[in-house]
Amino acid sequence: MNFAIIRNILGKIMTLLAFLMCLPLAICIWYKESLINYLAFIIPMVLLFVIGRILYAKKAESNRILAREGFVIVGFSWIIMALFGCMPYMISGNIPNFFDAFFETASGFTTTGSSIVTDYSVLDHSIMFWRSFAHWIGGMGVLVFILAIIPESKEGSSMHILRAESPGPQVGKLVSKMRVTSRILYLIYLVLTITLILILWLGPDEKMNLFNSMVYSFGTAGTGGLSIDNGGLETYARSTQYIVATFMLIFAINFSMFYLILVGNLKEVFRNEELRSFLIIVFVSVLFITLNIYFTFRNLPQALSFEEAFRNAYFHVASIISTTGYSISDFIKWPAASIMILIFLTFTGACAGSTAGGLKLTRINILAKSMYIKIKNMISPRKVEVVKIDGKTMSNESVNAVESYIVVYMLVLLLCTFLISFDGFDFATNFTASLTCVSNVGPGYTEIIGPYGSFAGFSNFSKFVLSLEMITGRLEFFPILVLFSPKTWKKRI
Amino acid sequence: MNFAIIRNILGKIMTLLAFLMCLPLAICIWYKESLINYLAFIIPMVLLFVIGRILYAKKAESNRILAREGFVIVGFSWIIMALFGCMPYMISGNIPNFFDAFFETASGFTTTGSSIVTDYSVLDHSIMFWRSFAHWIGGMGVLVFILAIIPESKEGSSMHILRAESPGPQVGKLVSKMRVTSRILYLIYLVLTITLILILWLGPDEKMNLFNSMVYSFGTAGTGGLSIDNGGLETYARSTQYIVATFMLIFAINFSMFYLILVGNLKEVFRNEELRSFLIIVFVSVLFITLNIYFTFRNLPQALSFEEAFRNAYFHVASIISTTGYSISDFIKWPAASIMILIFLTFTGACAGSTAGGLKLTRINILAKSMYIKIKNMISPRKVEVVKIDGKTMSNESVNAVESYIVVYMLVLLLCTFLISFDGFDFATNFTASLTCVSNVGPGYTEIIGPYGSFAGFSNFSKFVLSLEMITGRLEFFPILVLFSPKTWKKRI
Repeated sequence: MNFAIIRNILGKIMTLLAFLMCLPLAICIWYKESLINYLAFIIPMVLLFVIGRILYAKKAESNRILAREGFVIVGFSWIIMALFGCMPYMISGNIPNFFDAFFETASGFTTTGSSIVTDYSVLDHSIMFWRSFAHWIGGMGVLVFILAIIPESKEGSSMHILRAESPGPQVGKLVSKMRVTSRILYLIYLVLTITLILILWLGPDEKMNLFNSMVYSFGTAGTGGLSIDNGGLETYARSTQYIVATFMLIFAINFSMFYLILVGNLKEVFRNEELRSFLIIVFVSVLFITLNIYFTFRNLPQALSFEEAFRNAYFHVASIISTTGYSISDFIKWPAASIMILIFLTFTGACAGSTAGGLKLTRINILAKSMYIKIKNMISPRKVEVVKIDGKTMSNESVNAVESYIVVYMLVLLLCTFLISFDGFDFATNFTASLTCVSNVGPGYTEIIGPYGSFAGFSNFSKFVLSLEMITGRLEFFPILVLFSPKTWKKRI
Repeated sequence: MNFAIIRNILGKIMTLLAFLMCLPLAICIWYKESLINYLAFIIPMVLLFVIGRILYAKKAESNRILAREGFVIVGFSWIIMALFGCMPYMISGNIPNFFDAFFETASGFTTTGSSIVTDYSVLDHSIMFWRSFAHWIGGMGVLVFILAIIPESKEGSSMHILRAESPGPQVGKLVSKMRVTSRILYLIYLVLTITLILILWLGPDEKMNLFNSMVYSFGTAGTGGLSIDNGGLETYARSTQYIVATFMLIFAINFSMFYLILVGNLKEVFRNEELRSFLIIVFVSVLFITLNIYFTFRNLPQALSFEEAFRNAYFHVASIISTTGYSISDFIKWPAASIMILIFLTFTGACAGSTAGGLKLTRINILAKSMYIKIKNMISPRKVEVVKIDGKTMSNESVNAVESYIVVYMLVLLLCTFLISFDGFDFATNFTASLTCVSNVGPGYTEIIGPYGSFAGFSNFSKFVLSLEMITGRLEFFPILVLFSPKTWKKRI
């Protein structure tokens, strides 16, 4: 184990985090907030900067980063980010309890969007900004950012970090150089985010001032979902709801697609199976839920016009499949079949290589194909077939990795459901709380933790479990598993 | 596809089922029931016998049974059994609705034990007997029985049938001849069942007359769970509850263990990893639930003595892990953590090669080991390790099959949860209804379908979905998947 390089990169991450806190500090100044709020950002900034410099002081002799180092770096960085990221909440007094603040920070960075805040109107502007900015930082990943700005030593080294932090079973390099790939990804991310901010700000919705536009754009871009209004986007204009829904879908698409569009390679885009399944699933889900809620409620007091039914279906399907978690109405009051669709989408998530969480559709595709072949083989065992995605053959190892991944996901989901069940909530609350956290979606599917509820009712222990579950889910398990494996800490192998 | 041999064996199954109906008919005579009850058994017996003879009339030219034929035979037999098995309920008027009767029959043969009956006191003796006798027939499997009585032609042929019907990832032959193996299994099954009947009948419990002893012994042996008393075994003596709980555990152990004990090979028994995990899980679960319910309820009106807490924990852990489903109290009123333990046990089930359902512990063991190795490989990719169970190396194919199995299980679980969600019940009801049916346990984990509820509230469509789910779960998916695959019905390959 190359401890020196781990120390170095962690130092860089901490320095970076210190710089990123300048933005909420600027908001602090702009809104002329109290002194304690300045300190809320300055204290962690100083700490991060000093510790970061110390860790970075002694250069590593070797730049070698293998899979193990990659996992440890990523796992550690995210835990450090959550620990330092929660200091502003605690120091400012907006969220004084450590476990609450840790939960909120983990929810921010992992782009989950579950919250322990029950009344958003008490939050200060700088704190609201920091919550949503965390979504934007976590959406693309800090290490991907580090890769984009530091000179790279060895191609393979960066690959191990990128693989450990990026969502999805495979990391596609857009261009031969890792650093350039990271830069392209961040540039697309930045341009799309700014576009959304401008559209919202300059759009017809009076409520969307620059601050609100930024906050909701960060949350949409990172597919986060922490809201700053009680009731989410319910009180915003219809146009805003359609715009946000559409951008949630855009940010749930593999960013390579945008690169391919930019370089004019539309053929590759149309051939992409994951994108196709994504669009089909969105279309079918929206259609089903629109009809289901329209016809179920038709003759009841809560009846919706067809446009309302469509808008509700479109917004929430986009919100859940992109694992954002914004809401415009209380969808837990929908008929059970529509809620089941949302729960399915919570499992699947959207495309790999986007900012969305969940299992990712490419894994579902690989799994479906591999299952189909295995069933065929059980019937006529002589044929040998392989799984192909986008016309390319998948190795057995890749297919196995996908299957194991889904199993680990289920185990973590059930384990955390059990661990939080000591608080005495019902099974549906515990199960969907655990599910929404591991998939980084946000709201659960019962009244307590639904879009109009909060996670405040859980005990500190449960909040801590769910925080770790969010981080584990965001990093796709292995970095955290490796971090907690005793073998990792044995003498260098 | 060798259609002739499929026809022949289905004919045998139908003839066998006709003979098995003699027993409830005898009960009919003994209790001097009405004429319609005689007809309820005689009409299906005649039908089964005549159709069976016709199917069996023209002998197959070849005895060749490959995997595909094995799956089709098993899938078809079970559907035929459920269709003819529900005739007594409908004709006698005890359960007039087809979907109710089909549900109850599927629940019987698959040893699930979920019921649509809301008041057991209205059932006739012959019908109560038939419900439980179905458990006993389905527990070991009808095709295993056929294998035990017919002369075998080719070793491999029977193997494919046995593999398709028996629970668990691998079918161990006890002795070299398949037929002798089947006979040994059935003999152990018979002896254990008769032992239990005698213990219950001759025991101190006044309520356990010969009829009740038989009914509950059949349910325990097949790990079924259809009760004949409102409130299950609640009103029976403490001794009965301990005896039934202990025998539920015994029937959840791989029957090969009993054979090994009989031939004096105790070393193999002690080396068996699945048995070891089974005992550990039972011990830990009972300990946890005893303490959890004892201390949670201590100062409340529903406080239990320590013996009561232990008895409740022991009985219900045994009932759920063995996938029987009998109850002695309303465990859905327990604290959430204890209910979570029961839900876990609903997933896992007990040992392969027993009459229990669920995923089976040996699969969980294989999965855990394979996951452990895969995680290690992701960290240091050079080492090559293999999964070993009981000291024997598992092939990659076997490990893959286990992983696919678990994924199919989850998919079926979620799909059926969705299909039954149109009835408007809450998520927890739909999810645990689907879970308890796919694992062949019986009760769900909400008030509606809990030990004191019933499945009567579901629509006909949902009842049909759950019935098929029970059969699919009992046969471990592949026979039913193959049956519904269009490829199976193409011209012979």
